[in-house]
Amino acid sequence: MKNLKIALLGATGMVGVEYIEFLHRHPWFKISNLCGKKSVGKKYGEAVKALKNIPKEVAEIEVVEPDPKKIDADLVLSALPSEAAREIEKQFVENGYPVVSEASAHRMEPDVPLIIPEVNPDHLELINMQKKKRRDGGFIVTTPNCTAVGLIMSLKPLLDNFGIRKVVVATYQAITGAGFPGVPSYSILGNIIPYIKNEEEKVSQETKKILGRLENGRIKYAEFPVEASCARVPTIDGHLEAVYIETEKTFDLDSVVEGFRNFKGEPQTLGLPSAPSEPIILTDLEDRPQPRLDVMAGSVPGMSIVIGRIRRGESENSLKYFVLSHNRIRGAAGIAVLTAELIYKKGYIG
Amino acid sequence: MKNLKIALLGATGMVGVEYIEFLHRHPWFKISNLCGKKSVGKKYGEAVKALKNIPKEVAEIEVVEPDPKKIDADLVLSALPSEAAREIEKQFVENGYPVVSEASAHRMEPDVPLIIPEVNPDHLELINMQKKKRRDGGFIVTTPNCTAVGLIMSLKPLLDNFGIRKVVVATYQAITGAGFPGVPSYSILGNIIPYIKNEEEKVSQETKKILGRLENGRIKYAEFPVEASCARVPTIDGHLEAVYIETEKTFDLDSVVEGFRNFKGEPQTLGLPSAPSEPIILTDLEDRPQPRLDVMAGSVPGMSIVIGRIRRGESENSLKYFVLSHNRIRGAAGIAVLTAELIYKKGYIG
Amino acid sequence: MKNLKIALLGATGMVGVEYIEFLHRHPWFKISNLCGKKSVGKKYGEAVKALKNIPKEVAEIEVVEPDPKKIDADLVLSALPSEAAREIEKQFVENGYPVVSEASAHRMEPDVPLIIPEVNPDHLELINMQKKKRRDGGFIVTTPNCTAVGLIMSLKPLLDNFGIRKVVVATYQAITGAGFPGVPSYSILGNIIPYIKNEEEKVSQETKKILGRLENGRIKYAEFPVEASCARVPTIDGHLEAVYIETEKTFDLDSVVEGFRNFKGEPQTLGLPSAPSEPIILTDLEDRPQPRLDVMAGSVPGMSIVIGRIRRGESENSLKYFVLSHNRIRGAAGIAVLTAELIYKKGYIG
Amino acid sequence: MKNLKIALLGATGMVGVEYIEFLHRHPWFKISNLCGKKSVGKKYGEAVKALKNIPKEVAEIEVVEPDPKKIDADLVLSALPSEAAREIEKQFVENGYPVVSEASAHRMEPDVPLIIPEVNPDHLELINMQKKKRRDGGFIVTTPNCTAVGLIMSLKPLLDNFGIRKVVVATYQAITGAGFPGVPSYSILGNIIPYIKNEEEKVSQETKKILGRLENGRIKYAEFPVEASCARVPTIDGHLEAVYIETEKTFDLDSVVEGFRNFKGEPQTLGLPSAPSEPIILTDLEDRPQPRLDVMAGSVPGMSIVIGRIRRGESENSLKYFVLSHNRIRGAAGIAVLTAELIYKKGYIG
Repeated sequence: MKNLKIALLGATGMVGVEYIEFLHRHPWFKISNLCGKKSVGKKYGEAVKALKNIPKEVAEIEVVEPDPKKIDADLVLSALPSEAAREIEKQFVENGYPVVSEASAHRMEPDVPLIIPEVNPDHLELINMQKKKRRDGGFIVTTPNCTAVGLIMSLKPLLDNFGIRKVVVATYQAITGAGFPGVPSYSILGNIIPYIKNEEEKVSQETKKILGRLENGRIKYAEFPVEASCARVPTIDGHLEAVYIETEKTFDLDSVVEGFRNFKGEPQTLGLPSAPSEPIILTDLEDRPQPRLDVMAGSVPGMSIVIGRIRRGESENSLKYFVLSHNRIRGAAGIAVLTAELIYKKGYIG
Repeated sequence: MKNLKIALLGATGMVGVEYIEFLHRHPWFKISNLCGKKSVGKKYGEAVKALKNIPKEVAEIEVVEPDPKKIDADLVLSALPSEAAREIEKQFVENGYPVVSEASAHRMEPDVPLIIPEVNPDHLELINMQKKKRRDGGFIVTTPNCTAVGLIMSLKPLLDNFGIRKVVVATYQAITGAGFPGVPSYSILGNIIPYIKNEEEKVSQETKKILGRLENGRIKYAEFPVEASCARVPTIDGHLEAVYIETEKTFDLDSVVEGFRNFKGEPQTLGLPSAPSEPIILTDLEDRPQPRLDVMAGSVPGMSIVIGRIRRGESENSLKYFVLSHNRIRGAAGIAVLTAELIYKKGYIG
Repeated sequence: MKNLKIALLGATGMVGVEYIEFLHRHPWFKISNLCGKKSVGKKYGEAVKALKNIPKEVAEIEVVEPDPKKIDADLVLSALPSEAAREIEKQFVENGYPVVSEASAHRMEPDVPLIIPEVNPDHLELINMQKKKRRDGGFIVTTPNCTAVGLIMSLKPLLDNFGIRKVVVATYQAITGAGFPGVPSYSILGNIIPYIKNEEEKVSQETKKILGRLENGRIKYAEFPVEASCARVPTIDGHLEAVYIETEKTFDLDSVVEGFRNFKGEPQTLGLPSAPSEPIILTDLEDRPQPRLDVMAGSVPGMSIVIGRIRRGESENSLKYFVLSHNRIRGAAGIAVLTAELIYKKGYIG
Repeated sequence: MKNLKIALLGATGMVGVEYIEFLHRHPWFKISNLCGKKSVGKKYGEAVKALKNIPKEVAEIEVVEPDPKKIDADLVLSALPSEAAREIEKQFVENGYPVVSEASAHRMEPDVPLIIPEVNPDHLELINMQKKKRRDGGFIVTTPNCTAVGLIMSLKPLLDNFGIRKVVVATYQAITGAGFPGVPSYSILGNIIPYIKNEEEKVSQETKKILGRLENGRIKYAEFPVEASCARVPTIDGHLEAVYIETEKTFDLDSVVEGFRNFKGEPQTLGLPSAPSEPIILTDLEDRPQPRLDVMAGSVPGMSIVIGRIRRGESENSLKYFVLSHNRIRGAAGIAVLTAELIYKKGYIG
């Protein structure tokens, strides 16, 4: 496939740096612009020195303003913080760019697809509705909140096989989820913060949108309750979640395990470059998944979720498990790149 | 009241050291023996130097074997690990000692009271059944698992006011809950371990026993499901829990808050020395309770639980909140001392 | 003694909150104003909720601007960040207030005493030089950098007994030394930062000033080299330091130990309220002092330094030890209060 | 070169698992036996599950006893704990095996080379002395303590260029240096332990041996003092060290930097598979090297040391810097493999 020029918005943040790994030797994509706000004019490596050591050829790129008139790109990826995203992403769309964003700003708009490539690629059809409204070819596709991603991927095979009546989830979220400088060390060292602003609402709403059905150009949200309790913990990467669900149909645990194990989606079928061979990795070690040991598991490190401790609850048709997903990769940079690959492969760009 | 001589079993462990604070200036109790296994013959302060700095007069006491024949006590408190507790506590009971234990070994035996003094002091009646069986006056009273204590205290006013249909809880448990040396640093630094052996079963079973009703000399267990997911986190003290419950009756949030705020029990009525004036402290700060900042809240540090983020769920009659309790104090040493005070005050000893 | 009204500048910061413990039941002092910048108009407890739970009567005080015209105080204590301190403290002095500051802004000015009450109380004579210049009675006294305090206290008896030829020190500094929000959690969790801006210079210069001699109204700095390497580590409170020194005279280790053990100063002689009975506590446990276990040792928690692992080096007349001091108490709030007590007792105020 | 069969002793420990990365796709070496003590009969992956996820083909290997009669190897690598090493390594040598060991047991024996391949490859000549004593071809080569390695590599170019008069070093050592289970989490979470048994002596003695000169079949130790203070900090991998040295000759900082930058040794000249292209990486970021961000720098991750904050001290001819080295790779597994490559390439085996 022809190489696409990529402009990355929010390139200098905690998530921005994670795109580099995916983009700098990508078979289809090529970084054309790294955009930041406070670091305009600096070399990229210098701008992100507190976050990550960057490969030399990328480190030398000069950070530029996120201005649609000044960049040169076939596709825009956005790692902007939510408030900045609202206006800036809109400008790019209005200037005719396809935008794939992991920011929350536009996720819940009715004609904006909120995508996990393995779960609801059919929702991409909404792109056509956007294209109709705007003649210039610009559109936006979003990816979900980093906490919602792992949960939803784990729910998908359960929903398909047994139906879902209720979800109760408590989270153990890594500090990188809060960006940089993010959580002060005094607040989290040897501590837990049982609150993340708007997170519980996002987890609930995004789950229902993504697991909803596209009917006549509208998404009919899933209707089961999603009861989330979100907490920040002193880990670097990897959101761990304790999930309790009740299904509609009875199940046996073997079928649950099989459903997880066999879960695949379009990225795997299409052989997308950033698609892990196993989107869901199962562990049968009794005390896993653990963030530090398992967050980079799989063929594309950080792109698989890891599920363990699958067990029945005491209630009828109830199931419990823990799921781990990399918040900056599967939950942000990686999923955005995978989504970009998907829409490119499916012909939405160019 | 006449001073009671106290022998402390398992005195040299992670929980053992927490008794000292409560006992060394206690108005009713006086330490007579500090028992340990590996440290027999050592001075107590030396034996626990890796855990805590001990007040001088206690530090000088020599550690002795846990041998019922050799100690001199009116009451035995046990901080033994579960396996050691099974046999050793039994020996003390059979030698006529009243034993108050926070070990799990005997908790689920039908005629052994499992007590949270504010919640089910009436279960102490089981002591009389034990006394009948043994002529020598020996008996055992237990206190619950450190994770169960906070949960159950929070459930009690809800059960009384609205009835409970279901409990789903996920825990964030401090490393001291695993004893010493306990969790290796490599396993928990910047990490979460989503498994604690037998913990989920204990939380469920003990909750049902404590919230059960004593009928005709037997405890009829509570019947609602308790769905626990237990995880170890890198905090020092304080088990935090994300609780989701469904009640039987409808409720308004104000009544829930009032129920928590007004919760008191016999320890408060009787003015027991280790009873906190408020067993439940409410916080309305949006990101609390936090272990490091709140675990020592209240008039008797470590003896109050702290509840925050009280909110409705999406399901009918559903409620969510976080509860924090000090695992070594309210969850172990403190509750054992409070229970000992209660049984002494109520005349079960001497 | 008559009660002094105290205004506290920088009350809402990481160090500000530590003054409360010392001031709110002080026998001589009474909080009259708590000054902050961003929190003017808020209740103090609300303003510092992320840092510490504050006793109710203090929590209700309204934060006011640091304006010399609006406050009502006999003495001003300053916990201001250095840049703010430069101007604001000057304004207070010029308005006739006695100011005791732990900020670095004015420490190195020739007529400003830089004081550790146990070490160089004679330097307070510089106050009279300040008073001469200004007719209104205003003056400023400073206390040293939190890293320098512990080091200097440990050096004082060595200097007196054996003379000092060289000091090499490496530090393990707690995150609270950087204020709030201070160090981002991403930067320090499971990590060490081998750099603290200007810190090594401060440690060297302040050591030489404090251990210098007052001669004819000028301080003649000590002349030995102080070679510091400063690093931030993931601890909450307590700066630990690995000290290597070479003395001028030969020594035997017993005399070194005796020198530390017998070290006392004017605060102890005068019985100042915040003076610890032992300014230097010695530990002979082989792996101590440790920040988490030892930082609150002593009769006034946080006001004693703890020294351990005293041993000879390989070089001639060389000595090695570790010293721990509480950076927010002995290194900041506590030393400022102790210094205020000293100047009050010695008649410099009122 | 012909493939060598490798038996790994102590394969199931904290360092053992790090050899796998180096060995399982090695161009010259092939794992033939993984030896452990407590895990005999288990699959290797299962035996080390708490430490690391192991590539499938290695995970399936069955752990066997460290018995010279039962293994099949051309070369033995040892990651044994020191006490076990004393006897077991001797048995292997006496059975004719070449042994490369990172254990401390035999390091200081006069005819045992203690090697950093870039620093003192000429000391390998001692192998011939061993071979003379034993007719069977068995011999042992050791590598230094993980804390000594980084220090010594940084000293080598300074010694060659300017001479060394004195070394004062304080360390910030990662928990993996203590093995597994190693340091209890209670002891190190939010804490520093200023003591590591025998470590300061090892750093001093091994530095002097490695930087000594081989003269007439004996090593003449270097004679400058090495004043070490060793502390454990809550980091996972990477020993950081604050180094102060005094040189014999005057120097300018540019020459120091050049000396570090140009430092190369036989491994680089010979193109050994595990040799990093730059043994010393320099950072000019003001707050680096940092363990979490820099420990895997370089062309062979974990094999380069990183030096930063190079600056003059206050004393004559004094220099200060920080050096970081990966304790399990450059300090243990990696250096042992590199040493094995060196002795194989130089013809000491087979």
